[in-house]
Amino acid sequence: MTQLLPNERIDYLVHEDLKIIQSPSVFSFSLDAVLLSRFAWVPIQKGKIIDLCSGNGAVALLLSKRSNAHITGVEIQEKLYSMAQRSVALNELTKQVQIDLGDIKEAPAHYGYGTFDALTCNPPYFPSMNQEDYNLNEHLAIARHEIHCSLEDVIRVSSQLVKQGGKVSMVHRPNRLMEILAYMRHYQLEPKKLQLIYPKADSEANMLLIEGLKNGRPDLHILPPLTVYGNDGEYTPELKRMFYGE
Amino acid sequence: MTQLLPNERIDYLVHEDLKIIQSPSVFSFSLDAVLLSRFAWVPIQKGKIIDLCSGNGAVALLLSKRSNAHITGVEIQEKLYSMAQRSVALNELTKQVQIDLGDIKEAPAHYGYGTFDALTCNPPYFPSMNQEDYNLNEHLAIARHEIHCSLEDVIRVSSQLVKQGGKVSMVHRPNRLMEILAYMRHYQLEPKKLQLIYPKADSEANMLLIEGLKNGRPDLHILPPLTVYGNDGEYTPELKRMFYGE
Repeated sequence: MTQLLPNERIDYLVHEDLKIIQSPSVFSFSLDAVLLSRFAWVPIQKGKIIDLCSGNGAVALLLSKRSNAHITGVEIQEKLYSMAQRSVALNELTKQVQIDLGDIKEAPAHYGYGTFDALTCNPPYFPSMNQEDYNLNEHLAIARHEIHCSLEDVIRVSSQLVKQGGKVSMVHRPNRLMEILAYMRHYQLEPKKLQLIYPKADSEANMLLIEGLKNGRPDLHILPPLTVYGNDGEYTPELKRMFYGE
Repeated sequence: MTQLLPNERIDYLVHEDLKIIQSPSVFSFSLDAVLLSRFAWVPIQKGKIIDLCSGNGAVALLLSKRSNAHITGVEIQEKLYSMAQRSVALNELTKQVQIDLGDIKEAPAHYGYGTFDALTCNPPYFPSMNQEDYNLNEHLAIARHEIHCSLEDVIRVSSQLVKQGGKVSMVHRPNRLMEILAYMRHYQLEPKKLQLIYPKADSEANMLLIEGLKNGRPDLHILPPLTVYGNDGEYTPELKRMFYGE
């Protein structure tokens, strides 16, 4: 039987036949993880996928529904690592999905350079913060702020981990786009696909999905826009399909 | 009376009270010019605006409806320059709008460095072509291909022409976004606003509007998406408003 710690609960992971252990005071998966797991290119039948900054494992779990490849998730926070690992067991996915506790900066030395066919990452969105904010909730702070890894760390390590021709997919905020593109170019991950997420049709984008190809040739495509809420305040039909399979 | 050359005709420039001389075999303004003239920041009451790669003057003419500032248009092709100049006269805008025949690469020396508050440009979209294609229609080739100015020329010259804090707005193709952003950063035009144009809601973007601020601080906003055609094949309500004021 799955053991739950205080404040933890089991939620259903969208419409997939998947359950996930969450803890609002520590970390809950969000739309970002769902969108990333659907946007990312993955090998279907075989190969190796790695998910960095795995949190409670939402992306790794969701990818298992799209691919038979082996999936490694890396998470630096022990509480989240433990939740992710128990969720993998709860879904009987231990043969396909492996969650490791570790610092992504050490991942290339640990797993080997050029090891993976595909890599996903939902990194901390915000630059490092001051000590005062940091003390409020350490778990949320680490998940959201660049305390243990900077955007440059994420992109450098991603480039090191994938094979030639391997694909790196990331979800992030539009105000970081310039940095993301500059680091991707610098670390030989050529941006090939960009998708903007708009909360409403008349709002500025508040999220972006980007895919880079290791040593790819320049040819960026900007995919159709994704709008989250309609004018009625409900999820758009497209989002409902993603979440509930409607 | 306005003199028209062979193949030329007078069209109405969208719903504004403006007429424009066009020639399908030489150059016609397009959606790109309309979108750019609405996207660009312009000083309202006074100041100086320059429009590079002016073609038949559509952007310069449209900007005159949004601003009382003086507007200079620069065009390298004599036929287009002549059409633009006659259109300015036709609309009795000679006091506000000046069209010059010239090479944009010589513009900073001619007009002075740091002269303008705002700059617009609808540059050639395609890299330079081979001689064979070039011979088919010289006028269209020069307007569409980077024969007389490269993307880097456009961005370098734009940066030189605007003041500190001046704004440069451009319309271009999404597959050039990486280059545009890299050159803008290189020439101290910090990208601040990006808008993607999607032909249909479920299509990849086929146009982009971007604004850079001379020596600005990094803070990119991605504006709401603009969709051109609805599922019924008609212009979307938003586009109709732009074109016909509906």
